[in-house]
Amino acid sequence: MRSPELRLDIATVCLSGTLDDKLAAAAAAGFDGVEIFENDLLVSTWAPREIRARCGDLGLSIDLYQPFRDFEAVPPDVFEANLRRAERKFDVMQQLGADTMLVCSSVSPDAVDDDDLAAEQLHELASRAGERGIRIAYEALAWGRFVNTYEHSWRIVRRGDHPALGLCLDSFHVLSKGSDIAGIRVIPGAKIFFLQLADAPKLRMDVLQWSRHHRLFPGQGAFDLSTFVGTVAATGYAGPLSLEVFNDVFRQSDPARTAADAMRSLVILREDVSNTGPVQVRERMRVADLSTVSAPAGYAFVELAAPAPAGILAAMGFVHIGQHNTRPIQLWQQGDARVAVRAGVSERIGALGVATSEPLVAAQRAKRLLASGMSDVDYDDPAVTAPDGVGIVFVRPEGDWMADFTPPEPGMVVNTCGITGIDHISLTEPFDDFDQIALFYRAALGLEPEPEAEFAAPFGLIRSRSASDRDRRIRIALNVATLRRGHWAPAVLDPQHIAFTSDDVVTTAMAMRALGAPLLDIPGNYYDDLDARFALPPERLDLLRSYSLLYDRDEHGEFLHFYTHMLGSRVFFEVVQRIDGYAGYGVVNSPVRMAAHRQFRLANAPARE
Amino acid sequence: MRSPELRLDIATVCLSGTLDDKLAAAAAAGFDGVEIFENDLLVSTWAPREIRARCGDLGLSIDLYQPFRDFEAVPPDVFEANLRRAERKFDVMQQLGADTMLVCSSVSPDAVDDDDLAAEQLHELASRAGERGIRIAYEALAWGRFVNTYEHSWRIVRRGDHPALGLCLDSFHVLSKGSDIAGIRVIPGAKIFFLQLADAPKLRMDVLQWSRHHRLFPGQGAFDLSTFVGTVAATGYAGPLSLEVFNDVFRQSDPARTAADAMRSLVILREDVSNTGPVQVRERMRVADLSTVSAPAGYAFVELAAPAPAGILAAMGFVHIGQHNTRPIQLWQQGDARVAVRAGVSERIGALGVATSEPLVAAQRAKRLLASGMSDVDYDDPAVTAPDGVGIVFVRPEGDWMADFTPPEPGMVVNTCGITGIDHISLTEPFDDFDQIALFYRAALGLEPEPEAEFAAPFGLIRSRSASDRDRRIRIALNVATLRRGHWAPAVLDPQHIAFTSDDVVTTAMAMRALGAPLLDIPGNYYDDLDARFALPPERLDLLRSYSLLYDRDEHGEFLHFYTHMLGSRVFFEVVQRIDGYAGYGVVNSPVRMAAHRQFRLANAPARE
Repeated sequence: MRSPELRLDIATVCLSGTLDDKLAAAAAAGFDGVEIFENDLLVSTWAPREIRARCGDLGLSIDLYQPFRDFEAVPPDVFEANLRRAERKFDVMQQLGADTMLVCSSVSPDAVDDDDLAAEQLHELASRAGERGIRIAYEALAWGRFVNTYEHSWRIVRRGDHPALGLCLDSFHVLSKGSDIAGIRVIPGAKIFFLQLADAPKLRMDVLQWSRHHRLFPGQGAFDLSTFVGTVAATGYAGPLSLEVFNDVFRQSDPARTAADAMRSLVILREDVSNTGPVQVRERMRVADLSTVSAPAGYAFVELAAPAPAGILAAMGFVHIGQHNTRPIQLWQQGDARVAVRAGVSERIGALGVATSEPLVAAQRAKRLLASGMSDVDYDDPAVTAPDGVGIVFVRPEGDWMADFTPPEPGMVVNTCGITGIDHISLTEPFDDFDQIALFYRAALGLEPEPEAEFAAPFGLIRSRSASDRDRRIRIALNVATLRRGHWAPAVLDPQHIAFTSDDVVTTAMAMRALGAPLLDIPGNYYDDLDARFALPPERLDLLRSYSLLYDRDEHGEFLHFYTHMLGSRVFFEVVQRIDGYAGYGVVNSPVRMAAHRQFRLANAPARE
Repeated sequence: MRSPELRLDIATVCLSGTLDDKLAAAAAAGFDGVEIFENDLLVSTWAPREIRARCGDLGLSIDLYQPFRDFEAVPPDVFEANLRRAERKFDVMQQLGADTMLVCSSVSPDAVDDDDLAAEQLHELASRAGERGIRIAYEALAWGRFVNTYEHSWRIVRRGDHPALGLCLDSFHVLSKGSDIAGIRVIPGAKIFFLQLADAPKLRMDVLQWSRHHRLFPGQGAFDLSTFVGTVAATGYAGPLSLEVFNDVFRQSDPARTAADAMRSLVILREDVSNTGPVQVRERMRVADLSTVSAPAGYAFVELAAPAPAGILAAMGFVHIGQHNTRPIQLWQQGDARVAVRAGVSERIGALGVATSEPLVAAQRAKRLLASGMSDVDYDDPAVTAPDGVGIVFVRPEGDWMADFTPPEPGMVVNTCGITGIDHISLTEPFDDFDQIALFYRAALGLEPEPEAEFAAPFGLIRSRSASDRDRRIRIALNVATLRRGHWAPAVLDPQHIAFTSDDVVTTAMAMRALGAPLLDIPGNYYDDLDARFALPPERLDLLRSYSLLYDRDEHGEFLHFYTHMLGSRVFFEVVQRIDGYAGYGVVNSPVRMAAHRQFRLANAPARE
């Protein structure tokens, strides 16, 4: 059997705006069809026939009208009223040209716990629908009064036994209940009329609130959507993959951007299913032109723009090893850590130089994941721009990219302070794009997520999510303020930093202080607490205190680290030493660092050359 | 026994910033003391002795050091380490001059379920604390591993039997578990060392997340704090009432404002306890200078500033009945609805004229609730400014305030459209201040909360909370966008409206249309859905459709209403008819109204004269 072409849909409820905004955004992002959420239709000034025409113009089909609620297993008078209500909606659907209606399992106090009655009434509904060329897709809401598992909805559909009666499966309702999805394999694909996809974070809360506010696009949450989709597709289901995501942020964000993020999620999900799903579905899910990622070999360099950073870099033992042949970029190096300093733009980490054996393939992959081209091309190597605006330059590990740089005059003093390489970079992202940006970096660079942390900083909560490749050559830590509003929070906006590695952070700190590097002082209260918590040997604690080193410990080993002041108002450096495979980022110490940065800023002008 | 003076405290964790910000805010709001949250101390550059000195300068005592975690019911080696840890914290407390330490019930995997062991180890801790003049206040966390109810913590404290060992009661931990607080009455007041207060909304979610993110100040949530405080105070507890509120918004908002809101909450809570609490505590809780509220007699007028509203008011049948003698304010009237139109300021509802038999007393009460004076005094009557900037002018119901207005020349045409009065006013408030503003209006005007609604508007979620007096003379609906960020949402910012009453909204709409009033058209899809939902008689549905009337129904009766266009970009009018005691505000129709307003704005310039 030749598979029909895979269709990708999005529910209008995922997107902000009125129906015209939503349809335009869905079409622009390349979706094939939409689910029309009833309220979007109700408030529209377009009559159903006009909506149909508009969708036609945009190349969108209307694949589902939803939701129809509280229909089944009710007393005869309510049943009559519900049939009347359904007929009115069938009128609308025929004008829309929509052939499938979603019927959610009842939450009504009128309903009774009687599967036979539910099946009988759904059969009658399907008969009437069928006469008008409409199909009924019955869905078990996770909070349905009597029917709240897909197994139960399937029993009722089977008992209802009508060609126009089938199932709607929604990953949220199935996976939020922790249902065993193996049972899906006994459902004939032809009886699955519709497949709705949503991811979600693991939250222990009321499932209805969880569903209505916290759904995410695939890959952004904690659900195993790949296995779910593979299982459903293996039944022979040939309908659309349709995103139905209720999310407070998406409801009020630019729908064009949300739709593009949604499409990226589907691309990544399809790749996953095509790699690891049941054999018979892999080809169908394959994404054309999406090459496999090469494992990154590490950071070749990080490009930085900051107010006059040369003084700080020199005081940290870096050496100016070259000047770009055509651009105002200086290359500074110490050990394997290279910082490309760019003049004349606002303070930020501008680009990551990622070493990979196949730069061109890696860049093509990133573009297929909806990265834009690098807007301001300064490198001959393939480059893209991540959704947060950071450039990614893919270079060969052999370092031939360095041929672009002319070495400076000889005789320069080399103050090596023991920095050996780049451990990670840390970026602060806007809350509304945080999940998508994290997903992009993981998918584009082949990283795996690490445990998420949330902590109370002096000016509000910060969530931190990091990712790294298996060999820990590329680590990226992404941070987000879970709220940032109003004029109060005086802290720097969206800080970013580069963390360098050292094999002996004490010696490195000593050497840097001797060279006059602007290192951050940590208050004494912190060390009194370290003493209380860890009972470190007194001489070790004194060493930490003397050099303002921070300390953490995990189940693997220990972590020592220190920071510089801000270069201007947002970028700074860190030096870290990982002992015995410590895996974290010292997040527990972040509030101390933030308060110290602020204290310094209140007391002094930022450190400048 | 003479009661000691009541002390009011706040935990530093309630407030944003570093310790210096927090202490300054607490002192400025008039608190007597603070709980110092450990992390605030750790990140501070002030040594404990400096913090003590700073608090002394500010007139704040340090009444609690918190929290000390995971202490009790552990194996001997862990116990030794924990005692060492505690001694280090006692060192800090002695330098701070703090005499009470909060010890939370353990969540540690090291702990065992052994009350005797817990009591024995807490006894040892208390002995060591007692030698240094320190007391241990043991608190059952709602998510404590073995000890998670106040009854259980009390059994352990009693068994621990040491003068320096007592309880900390926290309203969140007690009330979130649904515990019966009657059991508090058997605890001797002298064994309650500390009382922490927090309110919270009713949420069905993991209790730890609920506690850490969603606590509120008293009166803002769903807990009965009045009974709780009355019960604790009746034991003879003589320590502070201390607010400990973990809230994501407060963590990042101006601490001076948060502290003032916190103090207002305590004032209102104390009034409630002093009115309804056990007799022996009433006098102690009494708030000096807070007079009882007079029941409002209704809206005397609403003051409105808008671009050239005279044309719309005239087209709605209002008559210009007078001109203010000294200010650029016109008075328009129809039935008992009066709108004071003010020239020359930005578009908004500027003030509410509230009729009351004791204007001066009502204004004094509002000021004691931390309303500021009315910044721009245009009325001779007592006036204040609510926290959202809306003025409240208290006037006598007899209408002598109208003497300020000179009637216009006679012979004016009176186009009465059947408006009889003002039903409610509706304001959109900023999210961060929503709970406090709602609490202020309720407390200042003697209103009772009505059920809260949340709905999906085209550009994001809206929460709506209304309040009214018992006789439904003053109704205020407050709305908030639960998220509003970024540049997308094109809707008007912070809309406000005045809803007038009519006894026959169909006739009113007809009359207004005949006069050319700019009434809002409602799309046909809405009426098709009304038909499906309510099966109204066809001729009635046609009437609604013809005049763009919206419809709702509740358990009491029916609601008919319609809207005007925006006067400028945020203010509009509504006309409502309540049939058979309908109690709501037609919130279900709000998305339709919002989409229609937007559609009109896209298609036309705003309606102006």
